Amino acid sequence: MTKERRQMLHFDSDYMEGAHPRILKKLMETNMEQTSGYGTDTYTLEAKQRIRQACNCPEAEVYLLVGGTQTNSTVIDGVLTNYEGVLAAQTGHISVHEAGAVEHSGHKVLTLPQKQGKLDAREVRSYLQRFYQDENQEHMVYPGMVYISHPTEYGTLYTKAELEELYQVCQEYQIPLFLDGARLGYGLMAEGTDVTLEEIAALTDVFYIGGTKVGALFGEAVVFTNPKLAKHFFTIVKQHGALFAKGRILGIQFAELFTDDLYLRISRHAIDMAGQLIRVFERHDFQFYLKTPTNQQFLILEKKQMKQLAEKVSFGFWEELDDDHTVVRFATSWATREEDIRELDRLLDTKF
Amino acid sequence: MTKERRQMLHFDSDYMEGAHPRILKKLMETNMEQTSGYGTDTYTLEAKQRIRQACNCPEAEVYLLVGGTQTNSTVIDGVLTNYEGVLAAQTGHISVHEAGAVEHSGHKVLTLPQKQGKLDAREVRSYLQRFYQDENQEHMVYPGMVYISHPTEYGTLYTKAELEELYQVCQEYQIPLFLDGARLGYGLMAEGTDVTLEEIAALTDVFYIGGTKVGALFGEAVVFTNPKLAKHFFTIVKQHGALFAKGRILGIQFAELFTDDLYLRISRHAIDMAGQLIRVFERHDFQFYLKTPTNQQFLILEKKQMKQLAEKVSFGFWEELDDDHTVVRFATSWATREEDIRELDRLLDTKF
Amino acid sequence: MTKERRQMLHFDSDYMEGAHPRILKKLMETNMEQTSGYGTDTYTLEAKQRIRQACNCPEAEVYLLVGGTQTNSTVIDGVLTNYEGVLAAQTGHISVHEAGAVEHSGHKVLTLPQKQGKLDAREVRSYLQRFYQDENQEHMVYPGMVYISHPTEYGTLYTKAELEELYQVCQEYQIPLFLDGARLGYGLMAEGTDVTLEEIAALTDVFYIGGTKVGALFGEAVVFTNPKLAKHFFTIVKQHGALFAKGRILGIQFAELFTDDLYLRISRHAIDMAGQLIRVFERHDFQFYLKTPTNQQFLILEKKQMKQLAEKVSFGFWEELDDDHTVVRFATSWATREEDIRELDRLLDTKF
Amino acid sequence: MTKERRQMLHFDSDYMEGAHPRILKKLMETNMEQTSGYGTDTYTLEAKQRIRQACNCPEAEVYLLVGGTQTNSTVIDGVLTNYEGVLAAQTGHISVHEAGAVEHSGHKVLTLPQKQGKLDAREVRSYLQRFYQDENQEHMVYPGMVYISHPTEYGTLYTKAELEELYQVCQEYQIPLFLDGARLGYGLMAEGTDVTLEEIAALTDVFYIGGTKVGALFGEAVVFTNPKLAKHFFTIVKQHGALFAKGRILGIQFAELFTDDLYLRISRHAIDMAGQLIRVFERHDFQFYLKTPTNQQFLILEKKQMKQLAEKVSFGFWEELDDDHTVVRFATSWATREEDIRELDRLLDTKF
Repeated sequence: MTKERRQMLHFDSDYMEGAHPRILKKLMETNMEQTSGYGTDTYTLEAKQRIRQACNCPEAEVYLLVGGTQTNSTVIDGVLTNYEGVLAAQTGHISVHEAGAVEHSGHKVLTLPQKQGKLDAREVRSYLQRFYQDENQEHMVYPGMVYISHPTEYGTLYTKAELEELYQVCQEYQIPLFLDGARLGYGLMAEGTDVTLEEIAALTDVFYIGGTKVGALFGEAVVFTNPKLAKHFFTIVKQHGALFAKGRILGIQFAELFTDDLYLRISRHAIDMAGQLIRVFERHDFQFYLKTPTNQQFLILEKKQMKQLAEKVSFGFWEELDDDHTVVRFATSWATREEDIRELDRLLDTKF
Repeated sequence: MTKERRQMLHFDSDYMEGAHPRILKKLMETNMEQTSGYGTDTYTLEAKQRIRQACNCPEAEVYLLVGGTQTNSTVIDGVLTNYEGVLAAQTGHISVHEAGAVEHSGHKVLTLPQKQGKLDAREVRSYLQRFYQDENQEHMVYPGMVYISHPTEYGTLYTKAELEELYQVCQEYQIPLFLDGARLGYGLMAEGTDVTLEEIAALTDVFYIGGTKVGALFGEAVVFTNPKLAKHFFTIVKQHGALFAKGRILGIQFAELFTDDLYLRISRHAIDMAGQLIRVFERHDFQFYLKTPTNQQFLILEKKQMKQLAEKVSFGFWEELDDDHTVVRFATSWATREEDIRELDRLLDTKF
Repeated sequence: MTKERRQMLHFDSDYMEGAHPRILKKLMETNMEQTSGYGTDTYTLEAKQRIRQACNCPEAEVYLLVGGTQTNSTVIDGVLTNYEGVLAAQTGHISVHEAGAVEHSGHKVLTLPQKQGKLDAREVRSYLQRFYQDENQEHMVYPGMVYISHPTEYGTLYTKAELEELYQVCQEYQIPLFLDGARLGYGLMAEGTDVTLEEIAALTDVFYIGGTKVGALFGEAVVFTNPKLAKHFFTIVKQHGALFAKGRILGIQFAELFTDDLYLRISRHAIDMAGQLIRVFERHDFQFYLKTPTNQQFLILEKKQMKQLAEKVSFGFWEELDDDHTVVRFATSWATREEDIRELDRLLDTKF
Repeated sequence: MTKERRQMLHFDSDYMEGAHPRILKKLMETNMEQTSGYGTDTYTLEAKQRIRQACNCPEAEVYLLVGGTQTNSTVIDGVLTNYEGVLAAQTGHISVHEAGAVEHSGHKVLTLPQKQGKLDAREVRSYLQRFYQDENQEHMVYPGMVYISHPTEYGTLYTKAELEELYQVCQEYQIPLFLDGARLGYGLMAEGTDVTLEEIAALTDVFYIGGTKVGALFGEAVVFTNPKLAKHFFTIVKQHGALFAKGRILGIQFAELFTDDLYLRISRHAIDMAGQLIRVFERHDFQFYLKTPTNQQFLILEKKQMKQLAEKVSFGFWEELDDDHTVVRFATSWATREEDIRELDRLLDTKF
């Protein structure tokens, strides 16, 4: 639904711009320095160190990868053994929108019901209980990992209590908990959340801090808080075609994002903008499919209304609700301009 | 062997700096523009168009990927069917230094002997003849593709006649010829080569134009001159975790590299620098393992000499020749500074 | 739940005995004959010819494999290309009880809701429609095949009209329909079915005729009624470790099963026995979870009752219904003895 | 080269007949017994127990699979982790004649030079040394296992000293040694061998005892003398489509083969027949390509001579030696009849 005409307002996604100017500036300044490749440079070491500090997890193993699907499939393949699959919500990104990348590496995504994109610890426990009671267990894929996203694909968040419960179940069954943080910053800065970066580090075995959608040109920082899971991960990354030659480009970006709280501050901006966006839609009596504490908001539009609005504003198609209504997504980001939201407000005033 | 001390001279590899300044400038200028993702933006369209023109192949399908191993394994998996493998030189990058990425996707690398990194068309024909005469053929992996690199891992080049012969064999047996051009620019600009970009496009079914090692921050442009091979390649790229979210970052880089012959001009610089480097080593009576027309030069060093030199200069370890001698690699690139070569010359004068 | 004590009555499954005596006799008679391997022998040729005749499909390609999971994963991997997955019911054998064999070959099982183990053509059409309307389609696994089982894992059967509808949807979307016939004989001989072997051949692209559960020592005969799907299938079978060295052992078994209607006659026996079994359970007022027209019957037992019964009779555990009740499966087969059913009847009289 | 005409003499392979009569008799006797599936029956337990005893390895984990390629790829995939490959001779069966089954599971076969089909421990050590000294090691496939066959594909045998050396290297580098014993019996009974079954069990981590080529209808008994390698091997077998439903058919065969030394006695017969065969060829001044102590003998035939002989005798094509000569293989087996060898002798007298 993206249109690249002049004067369109864009709320399609959180990866429409380049990078935060500070990052580009740093890339510019360091451009002709010569460094060794594949993440052995000092910028990468610095980035890893800053991330370990921010996570309060000095023993964590940190790896910098390029994109989200790549990170999901590499981590999952790196952690699972061949008879294991990964538990995920039916709406999990790995389950629906990664073109079968997990299966390409030979692992099944074992799906569980979701509530607004979230897994319920009780469902996970119940699945694991039933599995280990099943006489035919050995004919089935072993559940070897739990995958959650935070924020979820629906922009929703786990509470600290919910994360604790999930981690507890994983600990009981001795399987790792993996948190996909492609939009992690927007979760950490959401109003009312009681989940911090340190707590995520404490309540998962491996997670990643998304850069692509939060201020970087690209990049996802994988944090193995359980470093035993990272054995030979470098080679697994290489095998997945995910090893970035000029590692320092990733290092510089994450070092910068984790200097002066840049990552959190720009995430906070997206949340502020999302708040304004919600108020604009409320003022114009739009019907929300889901109002979330993060940077994604879901509206229900009549098809005719959607078509008209799409002339002036681009946004994300989400799903058909019924023959007459469609669910659409509006996303803000670190780069959203307040004036665009005001402009949207004016546009809605005119009934466009 | 990379050392990151002050005042070291670096000839380790051709990916030690960032990007050509024109590329960074363009990334800066376009940074806050909003574009759609995954390569649907206008910069990517422009880059593809420019590449098709440079190749004189208007019907080619062009895809922009991030790195070399990723590109090799994605293209090979995208082109082969499940009972097929890929023929390559024993020293081919896919065969040795990609951590089994091709096998990870289920395909065997069928190795043939090499001469200075090159495949001989007669060896390929002989392999294919024997295969199709073998009564046990159906118990074996079908040769479904021929992989070559140009320049090779040894910095050597195919002649036009050699490429024609290879393509001829492939045509006879109806299997695609795939050329890994991770260092393509350095091949195109080599002294005495009779192989142009247009000819590569005409004499292969799919190849790629390396950006990572030739002026870009990162990026490899895959050109399917036989577009039938590219069916659903977008989804295959996604499945391999190789789809880049902010596609325009790739598009901008390749559009720039293919404006005003930037790609060729900066490649030419590396060749000039390699020529100077050769002359420096010759003047100091170094023994060459392989003197090549491209940007990589291979020397034989005594171990003691190597150790001393490594105090002041970083270079690539290649292989143990015997108990006393080691083969090492010196690489120039688009970014090599003439003053560094002069400095090396002075250093060698001092017997370091 | 299998107990191997003396005097137990066994209704666990349909693969508890060896082979029909006629098959063993033939294996005995031909034992010292010398034949070439891998299915090139005359017995295999004869079996294939008889199967083509029985299917009224002279152009079909027939392959003889060893077991069901092997056959499913080999056929699916042989037919799909790498960006495709297979649509199946959530309860489909490939989805639940094959330890991720399909995913091991890199393909996703795309699950749809089921009704008593069956896929509904409308659900399939709706899935395909939504898929091809989805703007994110290229980020998803392509549905490349529909998998059904007949009889299903629940012993239920498609009607001819239902099969026609499914085949119609597949034809519209140009994807093959694959029918898992591990228990095919018991489906063909069921009371009231209007589906014949010829019709299955006409209404699918590939299916298999189960031998392991229907009179053979082992063996599944794959019938590609659309022979274009079978390209290099021999090599795919070899690659999956599914090529049987002494092919004639499979050939002899299927040649015998397709002589004098042996396959159908012994299947009919299992159906007759299932009818008697139903009447025994009805007479003793057991509660059926599912009463089917084939050889599998599902009862709801109280836990205490189940435990008592299990002292004397072995049967299959199916699933927990609630805290107090369990669903169990009783299976008959070509080998079920009428006296065992009478003995069960007597046992139930005694309240065991 | 197999011809199935009347009166042909067949020396093509060692899997041309059914099974040893004692095995068929036992299958007959037990045919209508009811047993549980998937190897949980008492016959399988008995077979495993007998094999453990014969190996003098009470703690071994034993699994019964169907065929050789299946066994190789399942064991290798079960033992390796995803960043590992398997070291094998260039002529190893897994490397050449298994249609890429190992790669299908994502693992590279790392080939080493061979001498008459054998790996040299010094070559293995040298490979491992170079690998662990290589600075680029993390970009390469980790050698995770050594695969040898005994007898080899060339009918040759390791000596006890050679096996000890290989095992020693593997122990040093902590990687398992896997021995493919598809023709193990013929190795154990060879004249002059100093390698016993007990020693193989002591000098490998996992190996298998071939049944398909040594008296069984089919079947290979995998012995994990290092049981730690067998974790969840049942599920891995299932995932590979290698789990046999009526496990007792395998159990009965191996129980019988390991009763009264049947396995060794029938293997001895093949060796005796091979001895007679050698003498027949010697008497007629045939040129040997390789005279082996096991059941396979390799001759060099002129093409014209080969063609004439092939009218009356079937044998295996091995390889083209030069334009005028071909290497062919004659195999004896447990089932070879002395009268066939005498008949061959007479035939050669007549100059056929």
